[in-house]
Amino acid sequence: MIFCKILQAEPFYIMNHTETLYQQYKEQTQKAADLNNAAAVLGWDQETYMPVKSVPFRARQLATLATQAHEIATNEAYGNLLYKLSSKADLADGAAQNVRLSLEDYEKNKKLSSALVEALSEASSNSFNAWIKARQENDFSIFAPELERMVALKHQQAEAYGYEAHPYNALMDDYEKGATVTLLDNVFGQVKEELPKLLKKIENATQVDDSCFNKFYPRNEQWDFSLSVLKSIGYDFKAGRQDYAEHPFTTSFSPVDVRVTTRVDENDFASMLWSSIHEGGHALYEQGLPVAQYGLPLGAAASLSVHESQSRLWENCVGRSLDFWKGYYPQLLQRFPEQLKAVSLEAFYKGMNKVQPSLVRTEADEVTYHFHVLIRYEIEKALLEKTIPVADLPAYWKEQYQRYLGVTPPDDKRGVLQDVHWSHGSFGYFPTYSLGSFYAAQFFAQALKENPALPGEIEGRQFNNLLQWLRNNVHQYGRRYRSEELCKKITGQGLDLSAFLHYAEKKYAGIYGF
Amino acid sequence: MIFCKILQAEPFYIMNHTETLYQQYKEQTQKAADLNNAAAVLGWDQETYMPVKSVPFRARQLATLATQAHEIATNEAYGNLLYKLSSKADLADGAAQNVRLSLEDYEKNKKLSSALVEALSEASSNSFNAWIKARQENDFSIFAPELERMVALKHQQAEAYGYEAHPYNALMDDYEKGATVTLLDNVFGQVKEELPKLLKKIENATQVDDSCFNKFYPRNEQWDFSLSVLKSIGYDFKAGRQDYAEHPFTTSFSPVDVRVTTRVDENDFASMLWSSIHEGGHALYEQGLPVAQYGLPLGAAASLSVHESQSRLWENCVGRSLDFWKGYYPQLLQRFPEQLKAVSLEAFYKGMNKVQPSLVRTEADEVTYHFHVLIRYEIEKALLEKTIPVADLPAYWKEQYQRYLGVTPPDDKRGVLQDVHWSHGSFGYFPTYSLGSFYAAQFFAQALKENPALPGEIEGRQFNNLLQWLRNNVHQYGRRYRSEELCKKITGQGLDLSAFLHYAEKKYAGIYGF
Repeated sequence: MIFCKILQAEPFYIMNHTETLYQQYKEQTQKAADLNNAAAVLGWDQETYMPVKSVPFRARQLATLATQAHEIATNEAYGNLLYKLSSKADLADGAAQNVRLSLEDYEKNKKLSSALVEALSEASSNSFNAWIKARQENDFSIFAPELERMVALKHQQAEAYGYEAHPYNALMDDYEKGATVTLLDNVFGQVKEELPKLLKKIENATQVDDSCFNKFYPRNEQWDFSLSVLKSIGYDFKAGRQDYAEHPFTTSFSPVDVRVTTRVDENDFASMLWSSIHEGGHALYEQGLPVAQYGLPLGAAASLSVHESQSRLWENCVGRSLDFWKGYYPQLLQRFPEQLKAVSLEAFYKGMNKVQPSLVRTEADEVTYHFHVLIRYEIEKALLEKTIPVADLPAYWKEQYQRYLGVTPPDDKRGVLQDVHWSHGSFGYFPTYSLGSFYAAQFFAQALKENPALPGEIEGRQFNNLLQWLRNNVHQYGRRYRSEELCKKITGQGLDLSAFLHYAEKKYAGIYGF
Repeated sequence: MIFCKILQAEPFYIMNHTETLYQQYKEQTQKAADLNNAAAVLGWDQETYMPVKSVPFRARQLATLATQAHEIATNEAYGNLLYKLSSKADLADGAAQNVRLSLEDYEKNKKLSSALVEALSEASSNSFNAWIKARQENDFSIFAPELERMVALKHQQAEAYGYEAHPYNALMDDYEKGATVTLLDNVFGQVKEELPKLLKKIENATQVDDSCFNKFYPRNEQWDFSLSVLKSIGYDFKAGRQDYAEHPFTTSFSPVDVRVTTRVDENDFASMLWSSIHEGGHALYEQGLPVAQYGLPLGAAASLSVHESQSRLWENCVGRSLDFWKGYYPQLLQRFPEQLKAVSLEAFYKGMNKVQPSLVRTEADEVTYHFHVLIRYEIEKALLEKTIPVADLPAYWKEQYQRYLGVTPPDDKRGVLQDVHWSHGSFGYFPTYSLGSFYAAQFFAQALKENPALPGEIEGRQFNNLLQWLRNNVHQYGRRYRSEELCKKITGQGLDLSAFLHYAEKKYAGIYGF
């Protein structure tokens, strides 16, 4: 051993040293990931099986896990390790990417004082409880003071992060690195410009009938159908499972344990169907992340919008397509012969794609959905610009819904109180839903271009090529590329609404006959 | 405020200081508990719902949680806090008990080097995998080298803890503080002396018929029956739930989230029935621990034997009694009319209490059970005394089964490889099963003495008085008293087999008519 050491030239020594440092970095980073993943298990349990009295202790267990993970991710020794490593020229490419991204996270985390972190966490808890109560009693004034406090803290958070041009940019960075108000103003400018034209055409056509979804569909039969669809799109049940939850979600504890949840309404088949395929899309992404990069940035999803692009691609581009139902409708007829005996494939397809302005975002169709997001985005910006007081939100919300969608919520429960996000302090989150849809359309158009046989494969219930394409183009990279970069790499250009507009125009022209 | 301070005399200041220290102690101790409880959630998930591919990452997540909890519980600052607090005269009684017990834990934990802890953890994992494989292939030689390594490490552990008289005493301390080889030799001496006499009487009587348990009992009906029994004995389903697991267990994440699991064999009604009531007994204990003492010694169970006393009391003294089935058999007949139409209450009761020497501990009756434990106890002691080599265990096991029970396992799977415990390094655990049964008989006799109406209540499916008695006499105290102390406090004397012997003699005289 000693003999070897003497013979070794300097570069090898450095290499070894770098390797040791990298192992230390990996160990710390993965340890924090273990704690966060444990918290995710507790979160999953909370939404699926946890008995009701467990609530307060579960909250403290989750808080402890978060604190412990945060301590690991922000301690100075970890920072020093990252600084040392980031100056090493001999890190392999993947390792260098991990270090770069972890350093980015570390420096960002360090900008928040622990007092602010604690204040945000406490405000989130209070605000969430107030929101629950406000919804129950349909009374915005219960939520208003907590929301005001939250907005003030989000201001402080934006200041602590620092930003150019607009505080919203700083907050967006938590969900969608690189996105800015400039980008979003442009995106939603196009939404405001283009989608009303499409809506006008649809409005002038004969409305389609979606009543076939509201017959009685027994729970078990719905459940089994959703399992069979998840299985055939490639969701690995040996690395995941589906359970019931009131608010469907996907959660991941590693790429080999990714769980989906769905809800079942026996009088609304659409409710289970879209939540299951949507969550399935999220889950395929998580199952496709590289196992070897567990807990490291290259083992994590790129961004919220890219995550949403995966769920929307499967839900909308695939699951709401005529090709898909050409393949699945015969099965569905066998399963629900009574409910569907008088419903043609075409009527079923049209029914599921009914476009109609509505009050609730989560139930909106593919077109009007973006006005729901637009309204939230504009309100968030205005709150941060302090151009609208919190107390005025209910009235302003109603005005905007009338303005963009021509509908007015009869109460705040179906209005300004419908989403949980603001109570959690998630300002800057909503826009990623629209971005996800637009990326989905771009990605799907590119997949079609590269594989013109895709529609036939979908009709034949063969999803392997599509999944493999997503694995190769999106999943395998983890956080290596930001959303726009990734989009450029895949499609040759950055975010571009024309793919979505083209997709929507073509689809609804077929359905509404214009 | 300042005014107050000036007026306050010294004792108040000290009180305040002690109070602050105690709060710090509580915070640290409960933080470690949060991590351990989070690990328990991950463990529960692993045994109930976890998809198969998740195994390796789950193992590392559990290891991280254990390490983090261990770090909190062994760091010097925590120790200093405990030393400081233990010298405070102004601690309230409960607080002083917590500090005393936590200091006991701390000093014990500190005795193990982290190298030994790591070696034990690694050996446990290797040994467990070897045990699984050895069972699958029915080949003890696969397990033997790992078991040898484990025994060597347990020797090291005993040396590190330090002990008087016998290394086994040191290892027992992990499960049953205060128990010694002297105590166990005495206990199992009585088992060897007394139980064969009882067995002889049973052997000379006509054997009872238990074939009614092996008809076809549909899964859902079994499940519903077990839920109704759990509910009526007082298990709170708002603070717990029952799920399926291959090896039934109870786990707790707080007194308001205590989960039981059961197995269902459609061709063996007894399998579900006893596992469900047994686990229910464990769960009633955990649900009865004081919520305000969450994560602290006074919020934890007294010992393994006291825990087992609770499960055995409900399973055997209550669940296998004639009174209980006088109350439940009419319901059972309604649920399973075909299976039980030709079976009288008395035949059903006798069948469930059939005594017959057998090969497998977990399927043994109340009498022969203790010979299974005795054999394991004697082997463990011999391994630590180095008077028997690991390689000789299969042959020795067979000899002992022949000697004590008159049966010989046809293979090691149903012999020396049947239990998981040694693969985990749990030496000193088995005896607590027998101690639990003996304490159960003592406690139940005392409960009867204090409430002669109890048999009638049981027949009337009224368990509230019994549960309240256990809450008052056992559950509320947490770890305040060691097993023997608690037994003395409740019954006026320490561990004493005569209650069990009396109970068994009377019960089987009735069943076997001697």
